[in-house]
Amino acid sequence: MEFTLSTVALARTPFREKFGIPRQAGLVPVRGRIDMLPPWDQPEALNGLEQVSHIWLDFIFHQNPSKPEQLSVRPPRLGGNRRLGVFATRASFRPNRLGTSLVKLEAVCVEAGNVHLEVSGIDLLDGTPIVDIKPYLPYADRIDDAVNAIAPAAPAPTLAVDWQAQALLACRACLRELGYVGGLSGDGLCEIEQQVTQLVALDPRPAYKQSACGTYAMSVFGLNVRWVMQTPTQASISDASLA
Amino acid sequence: MEFTLSTVALARTPFREKFGIPRQAGLVPVRGRIDMLPPWDQPEALNGLEQVSHIWLDFIFHQNPSKPEQLSVRPPRLGGNRRLGVFATRASFRPNRLGTSLVKLEAVCVEAGNVHLEVSGIDLLDGTPIVDIKPYLPYADRIDDAVNAIAPAAPAPTLAVDWQAQALLACRACLRELGYVGGLSGDGLCEIEQQVTQLVALDPRPAYKQSACGTYAMSVFGLNVRWVMQTPTQASISDASLA
Repeated sequence: MEFTLSTVALARTPFREKFGIPRQAGLVPVRGRIDMLPPWDQPEALNGLEQVSHIWLDFIFHQNPSKPEQLSVRPPRLGGNRRLGVFATRASFRPNRLGTSLVKLEAVCVEAGNVHLEVSGIDLLDGTPIVDIKPYLPYADRIDDAVNAIAPAAPAPTLAVDWQAQALLACRACLRELGYVGGLSGDGLCEIEQQVTQLVALDPRPAYKQSACGTYAMSVFGLNVRWVMQTPTQASISDASLA
Repeated sequence: MEFTLSTVALARTPFREKFGIPRQAGLVPVRGRIDMLPPWDQPEALNGLEQVSHIWLDFIFHQNPSKPEQLSVRPPRLGGNRRLGVFATRASFRPNRLGTSLVKLEAVCVEAGNVHLEVSGIDLLDGTPIVDIKPYLPYADRIDDAVNAIAPAAPAPTLAVDWQAQALLACRACLRELGYVGGLSGDGLCEIEQQVTQLVALDPRPAYKQSACGTYAMSVFGLNVRWVMQTPTQASISDASLA
């Protein structure tokens, strides 16, 4: 049996490319916006949702091949050298390309009669088509004794990250140009810079490259961010420019 | 944008009709079976899943209208007289008819080279098309401080249920005929009879009928089960026959 699904909303996120996206929702409090599409962009369709703290986004991994037929995948989490069934992981190469992300609902906003959602902890590529939105149900979704021996705990940040002085100056100039207004916190970084630090600390490089030195770059928050691996566990952010 | 999804598995459950199905997965430990369809019925596609205690089933509410266009619903949970946005509830009338159930994985079984899953806590109609299966990730899916003020707690059983003597005899004869083999527990009921009791206790009647007396019936476990409302909170199971 086949079913045709249509897009009910589009995710607007700071992630312009797959590289650098955390490998699960909720790991870094990155903000995103869910733009509802007609006819679902009316306040009536979201009436009550403001009483809910977290929501499930059902989405399509739209940049993946439309007909994946492999039965197993090599999850990056396991170093890329162990095969697991597609149904035993949440890898993005999967039958029907159907993904699920759990994000925090920050606000339900009505603007000129249309609705959008402000969320945080998002791990979706900008432009991702959303096919359903569902409230988190703590009594049904929070299973205290659940076990997943493949991924027992959140991936911990593995890299120490510093900012080179000129990179921080360049980043701040770009953020001003992008209209970002925000205070500095105790470590002298603004919210966006802190989140860049967290994204790099999670080490987005594929596992087989994680012992390599070299320079890497990702496009996020409207910035091109570059970093240099100084040692296998020390990354130094070396540049930021407008993406 | 539209996307075509194909069925990867079929749910085999004791529920032959919508009436009587618990209004969320996990409420009654009803057993079900997930029959994988080709090409996903090979052990490779599920390799590793035995390390996971709970799984998400993404499915299609296939008996609902294929083009629901209402923006809000009247959830039975709220007495059927309050409208909420389709995205604020998990009601089955929803855009794209996409549903999600969290069930306990009891076993991954290989038979003659093909795979099926044994699960419990299932709330799906028999024959429901499954479009994806994903492992539960405790670190990402279990949100300790999540709030849903619309449905803060599991629906509690609201009816006291007893079995009339002849109904119990008839039920036991039917179960023998269906090949059911199982011991009796402390209350003198077998597992299936206990689950029938739990299903009736959750009061499957629509909210507007919950003050009414009368006789009701549901088809479950291959049985037609009938009960009489003796008082508004007391149900008496009066008959069981082969469905």
